[in-house]
Amino acid sequence: MPLVRFLLGRPLANKEYGERKIGAFEGVPAMGLDALGSSSYGPEAALTVLISLGALSLAYIGWIMAPILLLLCVLYFSYRQTIRTYPSNGGAYTVSRENLGTNASLLAGAALMVDYVLNVAVGISAGVAALISAVPELHPYTLELCLAILVIVTLANLRGTIDAGRLFALPTYLFVGSFFVLLTIGITKAVMAGGNPTPVEPPPELPQAVELASLWLLLRAFSAGCTAMTGVEAVSNGVGAFREPRVHYAFRTLTTIVVILGMLLGGIAYLATAYRIGAMDQTQEGYQSVLSQLAGAVVGRNWFYFVAMGSLLAVLALSANTSFTDFPRLCRAVAQDGFLPRPFAVVGRRLVYSVGIIYLAITAGTLLIVFGGITDHLIPLFAVGAFLTFTMSQSGMVMHWRRELQKSDLSPKERAQHRVSLAINGIGATTTGAASGVIIAAKFTEGAWITLVIIPAAIVLLKSIRRYYDTLAERLRDDGPIALDQARPPIVVVATEDWNRLTDQALSFALGISREVFAVHLKDIAGPDADEKEQQLREQWRIDVEEPVRAAGLTPPVLLMLESQYRRLDVPLLALVEDMQAEHRGRVIAVVLPEVVKLRWWQYLLHTQRSRHVRSVLLKYGGPNVVVMNIPWRLEPRSAVEILETELKAELLHDEEALRSMAARLGASAAR
Amino acid sequence: MPLVRFLLGRPLANKEYGERKIGAFEGVPAMGLDALGSSSYGPEAALTVLISLGALSLAYIGWIMAPILLLLCVLYFSYRQTIRTYPSNGGAYTVSRENLGTNASLLAGAALMVDYVLNVAVGISAGVAALISAVPELHPYTLELCLAILVIVTLANLRGTIDAGRLFALPTYLFVGSFFVLLTIGITKAVMAGGNPTPVEPPPELPQAVELASLWLLLRAFSAGCTAMTGVEAVSNGVGAFREPRVHYAFRTLTTIVVILGMLLGGIAYLATAYRIGAMDQTQEGYQSVLSQLAGAVVGRNWFYFVAMGSLLAVLALSANTSFTDFPRLCRAVAQDGFLPRPFAVVGRRLVYSVGIIYLAITAGTLLIVFGGITDHLIPLFAVGAFLTFTMSQSGMVMHWRRELQKSDLSPKERAQHRVSLAINGIGATTTGAASGVIIAAKFTEGAWITLVIIPAAIVLLKSIRRYYDTLAERLRDDGPIALDQARPPIVVVATEDWNRLTDQALSFALGISREVFAVHLKDIAGPDADEKEQQLREQWRIDVEEPVRAAGLTPPVLLMLESQYRRLDVPLLALVEDMQAEHRGRVIAVVLPEVVKLRWWQYLLHTQRSRHVRSVLLKYGGPNVVVMNIPWRLEPRSAVEILETELKAELLHDEEALRSMAARLGASAAR
Repeated sequence: MPLVRFLLGRPLANKEYGERKIGAFEGVPAMGLDALGSSSYGPEAALTVLISLGALSLAYIGWIMAPILLLLCVLYFSYRQTIRTYPSNGGAYTVSRENLGTNASLLAGAALMVDYVLNVAVGISAGVAALISAVPELHPYTLELCLAILVIVTLANLRGTIDAGRLFALPTYLFVGSFFVLLTIGITKAVMAGGNPTPVEPPPELPQAVELASLWLLLRAFSAGCTAMTGVEAVSNGVGAFREPRVHYAFRTLTTIVVILGMLLGGIAYLATAYRIGAMDQTQEGYQSVLSQLAGAVVGRNWFYFVAMGSLLAVLALSANTSFTDFPRLCRAVAQDGFLPRPFAVVGRRLVYSVGIIYLAITAGTLLIVFGGITDHLIPLFAVGAFLTFTMSQSGMVMHWRRELQKSDLSPKERAQHRVSLAINGIGATTTGAASGVIIAAKFTEGAWITLVIIPAAIVLLKSIRRYYDTLAERLRDDGPIALDQARPPIVVVATEDWNRLTDQALSFALGISREVFAVHLKDIAGPDADEKEQQLREQWRIDVEEPVRAAGLTPPVLLMLESQYRRLDVPLLALVEDMQAEHRGRVIAVVLPEVVKLRWWQYLLHTQRSRHVRSVLLKYGGPNVVVMNIPWRLEPRSAVEILETELKAELLHDEEALRSMAARLGASAAR
Repeated sequence: MPLVRFLLGRPLANKEYGERKIGAFEGVPAMGLDALGSSSYGPEAALTVLISLGALSLAYIGWIMAPILLLLCVLYFSYRQTIRTYPSNGGAYTVSRENLGTNASLLAGAALMVDYVLNVAVGISAGVAALISAVPELHPYTLELCLAILVIVTLANLRGTIDAGRLFALPTYLFVGSFFVLLTIGITKAVMAGGNPTPVEPPPELPQAVELASLWLLLRAFSAGCTAMTGVEAVSNGVGAFREPRVHYAFRTLTTIVVILGMLLGGIAYLATAYRIGAMDQTQEGYQSVLSQLAGAVVGRNWFYFVAMGSLLAVLALSANTSFTDFPRLCRAVAQDGFLPRPFAVVGRRLVYSVGIIYLAITAGTLLIVFGGITDHLIPLFAVGAFLTFTMSQSGMVMHWRRELQKSDLSPKERAQHRVSLAINGIGATTTGAASGVIIAAKFTEGAWITLVIIPAAIVLLKSIRRYYDTLAERLRDDGPIALDQARPPIVVVATEDWNRLTDQALSFALGISREVFAVHLKDIAGPDADEKEQQLREQWRIDVEEPVRAAGLTPPVLLMLESQYRRLDVPLLALVEDMQAEHRGRVIAVVLPEVVKLRWWQYLLHTQRSRHVRSVLLKYGGPNVVVMNIPWRLEPRSAVEILETELKAELLHDEEALRSMAARLGASAAR
C-alpha cells in the first residue's frame, strides 16, 4: 500500500474534480504528442514510398504535402465544430451515436479503440527504435526499454491526466521550441541563398530514379504521408478533461497542436526540397532519418542537433500518452452505454478511469512482448482506424447540420451559419472518406485487412456485452412493493471441522437468529477409534451445548455427523442443503461458516482455504434459497488487534483524516 | 475440469486406499531411481577427481570403491533395522524425533527437504545434459526439456505413487536388464582374457600422471564417489506407501535397490580397471562418459549400446521421481507435527499429498529456470544433506537400542539381538558421520557451505510455523459450555448500490432474522439533480417497503443514505458499523451483501468486484462483532439454472455416482 501511495499519490476526493481538469498547457502534452510525433514519420513515410524516384522524389513531395496540409486545415475547422456541438468525451463515438445510430457509433468506437492500442505499441517502439539507432549498444534491451516507457506512461496516467500532462510538458515544449528554431534557421538560410542553401553537414547524394512516377505511386505516398494526421482527433475525444470553459481550452489546445503540426509539416517539406534530402533505405548501413539529415544540413552535428533529436525521440516514445488520455475516456462513454464492462466507467483513485488505463497498458504491453518490441508489422494497420473515425465523425456532423437546418425556427443568420458548417463538415467527410479509401487500398495487402477483421469482431463483442447487461437489467427490474415471503427465520446450518471457540461463537450467533439450527461435523476417515471418537463428541455436545442451551430457554441445535469419502466438506454440505430445500420448500437455508481472519499474507499459506471454497460452491450451486454467512474470528488478542487494525485501516483509507471526516458526515446522515 | 480429470484421473475415495499402495515392483521405480541413477555418476565423479593421476587413477579406483561398497552394506543393514522399528513415513525425521529430540528431527527434516529439492533439479538437468551430449541439436531447448520432464514426473505423481511407479517401470527395468547383460558380458570377457580383454571400441589412451596421489586427493575422490549412495535412504522415508505387510515389501524394495546398486558399482569399478577406462575432461571436445566408454569397449557401438545408454539417460532424468515419492510424505509427517503449513498434510484427489508434490515441482522448477537448466553449480550442495540425514538416522537408532537395552525385562536372546543391532547402527553412524565430515570438508568451498546456511534457516522457519499453530490452538481452545451471550438477533445492515430484486430479496431475508434492519444506499456523486433523486428514492421506499412491511406486522427497515467522496462503499460502511458497535456494545452487527452469482468466468469481467471487496474489508477490519452474509442472486431463469447447475455440478463432483451415494449416505446419517 505505501508503494501504491508513493507511485500514484493519495486518493482524490470527488470535490477535487475541478482542480484536476487541464488547460491548454497540459493539454498539448496530454493529447498532442501523437500528432506532433507524427510530423516526423509522416513526411518520412511519404518520401520512403517515393524512394525509387531518387532525386526526382523531391519534385513531387510538394504535391503530396500540399493536399495533406489542406486536409489538416479542413479537419481543424471540422473538429472545432464537433467540439462546440458535443463538448463531452467520446468524440467520434458520441457524434456517430447521436447522428448515425448505434451501429455507426460502435464502428467508430471500435476503430478508435483499436487505433489507440496500436498507437501505444507503435509509438513506443518507434521511439525506442530511434533511440537504438542513435545508441546501438542498447539493441539487446529493445523490449525492456519499450516496457519501461510503457510503465512510466501508465503510472503517470494513473496519477491523473494533469500529472501526465505536466510530467511530459518538458520534452514536448523542448521539441516544439528546438524544431521551431531549426526550421527558422533553415528557412532563413534557404531564402537568403535563393532556394539553394549550402548544407553544414551535406546529406547523402540522391540516386538516379529507377522508376517513373505513376499516379498509384503518388497516391500511395499520399496515404503514407497521411499518418502525419493521426492524433488530430484526440482533442475532440477528450474534451471532458478540460477545465471550464472547456470548449475554450479545447479550442486553444486543438489550435496549438494543429498550427505546430502544420508548420512542422510545411517546413520539413520545404527544407527537404531546398537541401535535397530524400528518404534512405532503413535496411542499409548508415541509415539516417529525414529529420536527422535535415537537422544536420541546417545546423551541423553540434549540441543543438543533439538537443533537437533527443527531444524528437522523447516525443515519439511518449506519443503513447495521447492514447492514455483518450482511450479510458472513450471506454467510459462506451461503458456508460452498456457496451463495455462496467468497471471501465468506474472513477478510480485519482479521478481517472483506471481500468481503461490498465487495460490499455496490458493490451499494448502484450503486443510489444509478442512482437519483441519491434512493431514495424503493425504500422500498416495503423491509420486505417484513425481515418475511419475521421470520416465517421465528419459524416455524423453533416447529418447533424442537416437536421438542424430542417428546424423551422431558425433565423436567416443561423441558417446561413449552419449552411457554412454543413459545407465544412461535408468537405471534411468527403476528403477524409476519399483518403480512407486510398489508405485502405494502398495498405490492404500489407496488413490493413487485419484491422477490417478486428473491428467487426470488436463490434460483435461490444454488442454481446450490451445484451448481457440488458438481460441482467430485465431480470433484476423490480416494480411494485417488496415481496415478504422470505421474511421468516431461516434454517441454519453451522459447518465446521473442529470444535472450538470459533464454533462456539458461530453456534451462539445461529441460535440468535433461528430456532432450527443444525451443526454439521465432518467425520475423520474411518479408523479403529472413529466410533469411540464419535461417541465422545456426542457426549461432549450434550453437556457443553444441549444442556446450557436448554437451560437458557432456547431450542438446542441438532448435531449431524457427515462422512466424506472424498475428503471434502463441500459435497456433503451441498447434498445436505439440497435435501433440506426439498423438505422445506421455500424456506431459506443459511449456512454459517466460521472463518479465521487473516490479517497478514502469510497466514493464507498456513490455513487451508476450505471455508472460502465451500462458500463459493454453496453460492454457485446451492440453489435459490441458500444464504452464506461468514463469522470472522480473530487470532490476535484484543489489544494487538486494535493496534493492527488501526495500522491497516490507515493503509486502507490512505489517510485517517478521510476516515474522520467520513465518520463525522456519516453521524449526521445516519440521524436521518 | 475435464482437463484435470484427463490429466489426473477420477478422484479416489478413502476406501480405495488399500488398492493404491505399492509393492516392490512399483517400489523400485518409485523410490529407487535416485540410487540407480547414482551408479552412473558416482564412479564418474570419483574418477574425475583422480583425472590428474592419468593412467594411475585406475590403480586407486578399487581403493575408493571398496569402502563405498562397504558403506553401502552397512547402510543396508542399518536401514533394515530402521524400517522394522519405525514402519511409518518420515524415516530420518521420525527416528530423530523419537530418539534425539525436536531440534535433531528438524535438522534431519530440513536436510532431507533441501536434498530432495536439489535431487529433482540436479537429476533432471543431468539427464537432459546426457541427452544433449548425444543429440547436440537439442541444445537450444535445454530448459524446455528440463521443464517438460518436470511436468511429466509431477503429473505422474499427482495421479498417485503407484501410477508413477508403473509408468516408470519400463525404463527402470530396461536399464537394470541391459546393464546386467552388459556387465556380465564384460566381466566374462575380462575373466576369459585373464584380466586384459580387448575392447571392441577402444577407449581413449589414458594420459601420464601429472600429479602424485595424496591422501587428500583420495579422500576427495571418496567423497565424490559417495554421491553414488544418495537415494539409499529413500525407502525408509516412504514405508507408508507400501501395501501390507508393509515392512516385507519395504525390505524387498530396499534389498533390490541395494543389490542392483552394489553390483553396478562393483562391476563398473572392475571393468574400468580391466578395460583401462578413466574419466575424460567434460569441457573438452569429444567427451564421453565413463559408462559410454565402458559400453563401447564391451559391446561396441551397436544397437545394444544405444538401448543401454538410452535407458541410462531415462533413469537419470527420472531420478527426480524418488523425491516426488518421498518429499510429500516427509512434509506430511512434518506438517502433522505442526512444523509445516497444514495443507501439506491434506490428502489430495488421488490419495497422495498433492500440496507437497506441487510445492516440490514449483521449487525445483524455479531452480531450473534460474540456472537455465544447467545445475552443475548445485551438485556440490547435493549429497551434504543426504549424508547428514544418514548420520542423524543412524545416531537416532543407536540411541534407540541403548534405551531398549536399559529395559529390565529383556531375555538374554533379545539383549544379544539388540547388542548386534546397536553395533550395526553404531558402525553406520560412525562411518556415515566420518563420510559427512569428509564430504563437507571436500566440498565446502565449492558451495557446500550454502547448504549449511539454508538448513538452519529452514529450521528457524519450521519452528516459527509451529509457534503460529501453537498460538492458534491456545487461543481457540474451548473448555466448558457454550457462551450464549451472542444468542440474540443481530442488528442487520443491508448494503446495496441499486434498488432491484436483489435488494428486495436481501431486505426480506433481513426482516426475517431481526427487527432492527438498516438499508444503506450509497448516494451518487453530488450533482444538480442529486437532491431530487434522493427525494424520489425516499418516496419509493415509503410506498414499496415501509408500508407493505408495516402491513405484514413487521418493523419497517430504516433507510440510510451514505455519501462517499472516495467512490467506495467499504469506508462509509466500516464507519457505520463502528458507530453501531460503539452504540450497541456487545451486539452483533450483520452486514448483508447481495451478490449476483457468476457461473461463467467472463461474468467476473462484467461486474465490479465491490461485494467481494467489501466483504473482505468488513471481515478484516470490522471489529469482533461483525458478521457478513452473502445473499446469492441468479441471473439465469430457473430452468436454465437447473441445466447449468447439473452440468457444473457433474464437473465439480467429477462423477454423479459419487454425489448420489453421498446423498444416500447423508440421508441415513442425517436421521441421527
